This record gives sequence, structure tokens and C-alpha cells, in this order.
Amino acid sequence: MTMTSSLNQSTLGAASLVRHLGKWRSANGSDPAYRQLARALKLLIMDGRVPLSVRVPGERELAQALGISRTTVAAAFNQLRDENYLASRQGSGTVTRVPGGNRVGIEAEAEGDEEGVIDWTAAALPAPAGMWQAYEVALSQLPTWLSRIGYEGSGIPCLREAIAADYTRRGCPTRPEQILVTSGAQHGLTLVLQLLAGPGDRIVVDHPTFHNALSAIARNNCRAVPVGLPAEGWDIDAMQAALRQTSPRFAYIIADYHNPTGRHMDAATRRALVDAAVRTRTPLLIDETMAGTGLDADLFDIGPPPVATYDPGGAVISLGSVSKRYWGGMRIGWIRTDEQTIASLARIRSTIDMATPVVEQLAATALLDGSVPVESVRRAEIRDARDRLVTLLADRLPDWHVPLPEGGLSVWAEMPRPEASALAAMAQAHGLRVAPGPRFGIDGAFERFVRLPFTLPPAEMDRAVDRLATAAERLLSRVRPMAAFSPHWALEAERVI
Amino acid sequence: MTMTSSLNQSTLGAASLVRHLGKWRSANGSDPAYRQLARALKLLIMDGRVPLSVRVPGERELAQALGISRTTVAAAFNQLRDENYLASRQGSGTVTRVPGGNRVGIEAEAEGDEEGVIDWTAAALPAPAGMWQAYEVALSQLPTWLSRIGYEGSGIPCLREAIAADYTRRGCPTRPEQILVTSGAQHGLTLVLQLLAGPGDRIVVDHPTFHNALSAIARNNCRAVPVGLPAEGWDIDAMQAALRQTSPRFAYIIADYHNPTGRHMDAATRRALVDAAVRTRTPLLIDETMAGTGLDADLFDIGPPPVATYDPGGAVISLGSVSKRYWGGMRIGWIRTDEQTIASLARIRSTIDMATPVVEQLAATALLDGSVPVESVRRAEIRDARDRLVTLLADRLPDWHVPLPEGGLSVWAEMPRPEASALAAMAQAHGLRVAPGPRFGIDGAFERFVRLPFTLPPAEMDRAVDRLATAAERLLSRVRPMAAFSPHWALEAERVI
Repeated sequence: MTMTSSLNQSTLGAASLVRHLGKWRSANGSDPAYRQLARALKLLIMDGRVPLSVRVPGERELAQALGISRTTVAAAFNQLRDENYLASRQGSGTVTRVPGGNRVGIEAEAEGDEEGVIDWTAAALPAPAGMWQAYEVALSQLPTWLSRIGYEGSGIPCLREAIAADYTRRGCPTRPEQILVTSGAQHGLTLVLQLLAGPGDRIVVDHPTFHNALSAIARNNCRAVPVGLPAEGWDIDAMQAALRQTSPRFAYIIADYHNPTGRHMDAATRRALVDAAVRTRTPLLIDETMAGTGLDADLFDIGPPPVATYDPGGAVISLGSVSKRYWGGMRIGWIRTDEQTIASLARIRSTIDMATPVVEQLAATALLDGSVPVESVRRAEIRDARDRLVTLLADRLPDWHVPLPEGGLSVWAEMPRPEASALAAMAQAHGLRVAPGPRFGIDGAFERFVRLPFTLPPAEMDRAVDRLATAAERLLSRVRPMAAFSPHWALEAERVI
Repeated sequence: MTMTSSLNQSTLGAASLVRHLGKWRSANGSDPAYRQLARALKLLIMDGRVPLSVRVPGERELAQALGISRTTVAAAFNQLRDENYLASRQGSGTVTRVPGGNRVGIEAEAEGDEEGVIDWTAAALPAPAGMWQAYEVALSQLPTWLSRIGYEGSGIPCLREAIAADYTRRGCPTRPEQILVTSGAQHGLTLVLQLLAGPGDRIVVDHPTFHNALSAIARNNCRAVPVGLPAEGWDIDAMQAALRQTSPRFAYIIADYHNPTGRHMDAATRRALVDAAVRTRTPLLIDETMAGTGLDADLFDIGPPPVATYDPGGAVISLGSVSKRYWGGMRIGWIRTDEQTIASLARIRSTIDMATPVVEQLAATALLDGSVPVESVRRAEIRDARDRLVTLLADRLPDWHVPLPEGGLSVWAEMPRPEASALAAMAQAHGLRVAPGPRFGIDGAFERFVRLPFTLPPAEMDRAVDRLATAAERLLSRVRPMAAFSPHWALEAERVI
């Protein structure tokens, strides 16, 4: 479940710690040096960059490595001991800890983590370094909010501003009034469904598409109308035909690192998509949850602007979220569209869950407005994980076709035979949970596909691929494939993220 | 919007500060005294008990009042200056501040707070002292969660345990597996509606009842079947008749400090209610949002156990929340029922909003398990506010009937004539927003009633009553009452909490 390897009672070298510390001295520096050092060390511990129960270098050694006086290091260590971030034990030196310790049950729990079973269904990562600091910033700003009633149903102004500024920076001019803060993108989808669609209405979707979007559509008694994705990119002619022929209430599209395929829509296609929507007077709901997860640097930096940029007005509703870009434990998303629709959505919102927590909103602001920089090193790590997975699969399952995704957190692997559901069942018997293709489609489609996230830690990913390959071999040796997956997959299946 | 009076640049007396500090020295006390004092002062500032920009006593004066050395106070002040909780300015002494300062726009924003208009629709309070500390505890425990993916859709184990223990303590034995953590009670209601009811289904409700429950029922295309509340208590015979005759999917009841009437169901009625539900095989959804808001001490302490206590099995679903008991800006609620139903609700949940934020859950745990005590002084304050409002109304509107509620955050005031909607419109013209009775009923009922919260600060409450009385006089002098409120009140009206 973690990308940080567990270094129980191991030792952190001085050179490594110095690298982690980076520029720990602040520029203005009214604080004494020992305080600045203590604070930098505390952040490393709280953010998980330095694991718990690790032995830190001795005072003399660290002072030498940092080129500062031993007194300064000693004072910093003393403060951290006082504040319970360090503990000195006879014989084991000084080790890292956190004041709160572990909460009851966290070790035992490990959701769905039965003895030895690897859950390979979640395309989600642990928090990046910087997340703890974002919440720390939130707490420093909380007092002014505590004197208010706290129901911030549309979003606090600073967060709406930070989100609007992010769109504007990416080439899509946006005012804060065009933003509604939600409790994640899924929540935003629910709001849009409730505003625009009623029982029996049709919603056009990419096919395959995000399984939880299909669940939400079914849950709201609407019908998903699939438009198949071609071998590459999107088929805008087919999309336009579907929009014209089925009179859907809206079309739900993932243009940025599409889930599950990882593909990315180019600027010309974005423009053509909006044109098709305008011609057929169909609103587009663009899910940008995966925006910001591009793995190839140039694409990430000069990628096409948001789909809403091409909107002549009133045609596009954008859904965003911090859960893939930053962390799923922070439940902040947003809707961007015209102000009038935002006001209508805000009214619906109070009938569903009233408001989004104030602390979450403050912490998300600190991430989005750049107050707390999140290390770009994470993107390199994810890219390495992707490449590692593709290489492993090519080695162990050479007859599978695994396109390299440009972004996102998983590959959409194609099997030589349509038996994904049978494979998933067989894998389960080998201690591995995977998400078979039909979860991402309608009426049992995509039996040739499996979605495989590259979010597991390296050693666990190795084991997962091993078990998958074993399951595939066993499947091949069986006389006949197992029964197809239950059609009730969307609502009854294990949760997939 | 705040119960804390704004004491801009005023001075906090040493005696007052000593009272606020209370027992600031910890029992074990491995920390030096100056650190303990600094920490206690910091909590007072962050929790809002000591306002910002207030001048604190001088070092010598405070040392004398606390009976400690001036050196200790000086060291504590030094630390707080270093950490930006105190600022010393030439000529104005040492004043309180917070490191984060104000966020952009909070002054300008004040949601719906147009120039001089008093919003008297929200029955909600600012955060109690202890709230900031609860989030501080959460942050100290966050690191162990940051290494996980963060989707905690059913709730983190320690919070489910704390909620279950709270039920058990109140006489209703509960296991953690019987608890689903939600993002507030309204969110819990949405989940139950989605699990148990489909388009066109009937839901029995108290009449009047919480307006947002009616909105959620309408939003899910269900029909509310009203069962009128008698002059006092509940009419269980009428309830049983409605359950039998209308075959509802469930009945939604507020037994604890009913919103809007504030009444409280006694033990015998609770038992009779469950019996009626069992006889008619109708699930009861018991909204306990207001539980814990009892204002008369003996009732609060020895009040009847939760309705679920009388459940022979499978008949009762309980909805809880921290938003009225603690703070609406913390978005944590829960559902308590049998384990199988909890599992079904958890599956639905992922199609609506995936999960509840981890930090919110950790902070709520700290409040519910008693790690952070919330001052009981708050209940006395609320009771005073209630009594003050009832006295003011008796004085200014003597022909109104205003029963004294046993708990909750508002009175349900009865006017001599059925013109609540007209009064609300007239009040708006006098700079006051109030929630007319029909918002809490079906088909325009309760035109004789207005819900008036006692959550405004004293001075604002005085002004609000003054404006209400003026509006009532003006209404009386008009030739004919204004048109009744739009029937679309539930979805189109301003949000009421």
C-alpha cells in the first residue's frame, strides 16, 4: 500500500539526510538556525520522506555534513525530542517518531487486505511529500474560520480563486464565480447528473470509461450510451452521430489521460468535440481528474489547454479533483462552468451533503496556489513505475498487447483471448485482485482487457505480475473458461478506484 | 456570524487570562513550564477563546497572577513571538496573532451577508473551543495515513470505534462494523434514500420536519407522506396508521430535539414507535443530528437511550452528525444499523462521493473519544441565548406563542395569523432573512410559524428581533397579505441550515 519502503530501525545516512533537507535555511531568516533545522526535519518526518523509527545521524556527523556548528544541531535535536519527533534510546541512538503515534487498528485494518492478497485494483497513490505541510498551513489559517458557522457549500473564496487561476494559467480564462468546490470529482458528477438528467435519460460516454461514472449513471436511473474509442484517439464523427441520434442529456468524456486507456486528446480533437457538442446542443461534461498526471515532460508542459477553452459559452462543464494529482485522502474536487449553472448546482448540493470541510479546502488551496510546492520528483517515480510494469508484462506475458500510456496511473492491457473475467477469478485464487475490462464497459464488453495500475511499490508489483502470469497460465491449461463476470458488476463488485 | 465579540486592539486582563488558562500545567510535566504555558496560550488563540489583535497582560503582571516567575512568562512569550502567535509593537504592547493571518477574501465574502442584512435562517454555531486542538491531534496522527491511498469509504477504524462506543455508552450496544462514516447526516440520508427508495416511492415524515430532508426526498423523486405532530410529543397511532396505509419505504423521524420544534421523544414513545415500525415492517430512519444539544441538564444527562436501543433487529437506521453538536465546518456524520445494510450502503457510497477525508475523520475521533474535551460551558451559553430570545419575543411580539424548546438551536414560533411567508418577505425589506414555516412542511403548511434560531450573538439577536417586530407591525398595517411563498421553496429558496 505504500511506495515508501519500510526501513524498520534502519539508519539514515548523513549524506542522504542532507539531500532530503535541501535548502532548509529560509531566506529572510529571523528564526534562529536551530529552529529552522528543527522545522525542516519535522516536515521530513511528518511528510513521510523520512520514515518512522529510523536512526538519524549523530549530532557531530550531521553538523559536519551540513557545515554548521554542533551546538545548532544539538539544539534542533533537543527541540524535536521535546516535541516528540525524535526519541533517544540507550543503545539505538536517536530515532524518528511522531507525537500522535499510531491510531488503534491501522495495522490490523489494511482495507480488504486479507492475508497476503495483493489488491491491484486501485489506481491511486500514497500522499506526496508536501501533503502534511499543506494541512499544517490549513491549521494556521483555521482560526479565522472557527468563528463562523462553517457551511461553505460553494467553496471558500481563496480556493475558488486558486482553482480559477489554475485554469487561467493553463490557457482557459476563468473567474472564481465559475467554480463550485465539491467533495471530489465523483461528487461533482453526481451533482451534474441530478441537475441535468432524470430517470430514463441517456448519457453518452466514451467506451471504455471510468467504472464509477457508469455506476453513478446507473444509480441515477439514467442509461449510458457508449461511443467506442478507436485504436488511437477519439472518433469525433461517431461521437457527433451519437449526440444527434440519441438526444442525450449530456456526454461524459475523459480527455486528459483517459481512464482506463491513458490516452490524451489533442487540441484539434478538443476543438472538434466542442463543435460537435455545439452543433447538437449537447452539454459536454469533461472529467479532468487525470489532468496533471502526464508522464512525458514535454506533453505535460505544453499540453493542449482544457476543453472548456474552446467553449463559445454554455457548452462545457469541467470536473476536477485533487485525488489523483495529489492524494485521494484529500476529498476536494470542483466543477467549472458558467456562473448561472454553478448557482443551480450549489442549490442542489445542499440537498446531498451540505458542504465541503473547511480544513480540506484550506489545505487544497495551499497546494493549488503553490504555497506548498509538491516535489516534481514524484512524476519521475511514477514514470519509472509505468516503464517497469510495461517491461515486466512484456517479459512474463509476451502475447499480451500493452500500449504505453502517456499519463494516468494504469495500463489498459489487451489479452490474446476474451477471458478477462475468468482471469480475474483465477487471479483471486492466486492471491491477486485485478479489475477486469468489463467493469469499464457496458453489457460485458472488454473481455479482452484488464486495467493494471502502476501504483504498487516495486517489490509488490513484481509479485503481482508474477501472480497474474501464473493465473494466465493456469487459465490456458483449463479445458474451458469460467463463466463470465456477473452483469451486476457495477454495483455489486468490490470497489475499484 | 460569531459569538465572540470583536475586541479590536482591546486589552485582556490578567485575571481573565488566568481564568481562560485554567489548569495549564500538565500532570506528568516532562516539558519545562515555559513550554507548557506557551502551548496553553497558543491553544487559547487558535481556538478563538482569546481573540486576535488583543493586547495580553505584561510579563510581570501575568507572572504575578499565575504565581510563577517572570522568567517563565518571558520565555513563553519569546517562544510565541518566534512562532508568530504574539507580536510586540512599539506603544501597543504585545498582541495576539496567528501565523497564517487572514486568507484572501474572508472579510469581503461573508456569504450572503449583504450590507447590513442579518441572516437569521441558519441554526448553526461557530466552532466551540477545542476544535482547533482536535485538528491538531489529527495532524499529529496523519503521517501513518499518508503512506496509504486514503480512500476510506466506510470510515477509519478508530472513528468507527469511537462512534460505536458513544452509542454503547448511551445504552445502545454497538459494534464498529455497525457504523458507516459519512460526510454529514444529509449525506447519510441521501445514501439511505438511494438504498431503500426508488422514483415514486413514499417516505413518511414528521410534519413539520427538517427542510433539507424534504428537499432530499423530492430530489430523489420520492414523495413525502406527512404525519402531523400534535401539540406535544408524537402521535404514534397516526404514525402507525400512515405506515400501514401508505406502504412507505421508510419513515424519517427526528426524535432528539426535533428540528424545527425542538421537542424530545420520551422512552415510552420511542418503544411504541419501534413497535409500530416492526408491526408494519417499515424501517425507521432516525435522524440524531440534534442529539447532544439538550439544554436542560438533567434531561441531557439521563435522557432516554437512542431509538435503536429498542430495535429487535433490522428495524432502525440511525443518522448522526457532529455538525450541530460540534461544528458545521467539520463534515462528519454516520449511519448506524445492522452490518449487512452497512455493507450495502458502503457500496452505494462509492458511486456518490467515494470517501470522507482522512483528516476530518481523525479530528472527529479526537472529539468523540474524549481526547480533546469540548467545554461544557457552551451548553450554558446556548441556554442563555435561548432564554434571551424567548424573553425578547415575549416582550416585542406578545401575541406570538413561543414554546420553550428542550434542546436544539431554534424556537418554532407561532404567529397569531397565517402569514409567515408574507412576514419573511416583509422582513427581507427590513434587512432580515428568516425561514418561514412552509419551508418545513408540505403543500404550504405552517403559514402560522417561523423558525427562529438562537445562534446569533446577543447584539445581533437584539437587532434581529427588532427588525422582525417592525416587519410584523408593518404587515399588520397593510390592507392585504402578500402572495404566499412560491411552492418551489424547497429547491429554489435560499439555503437554510
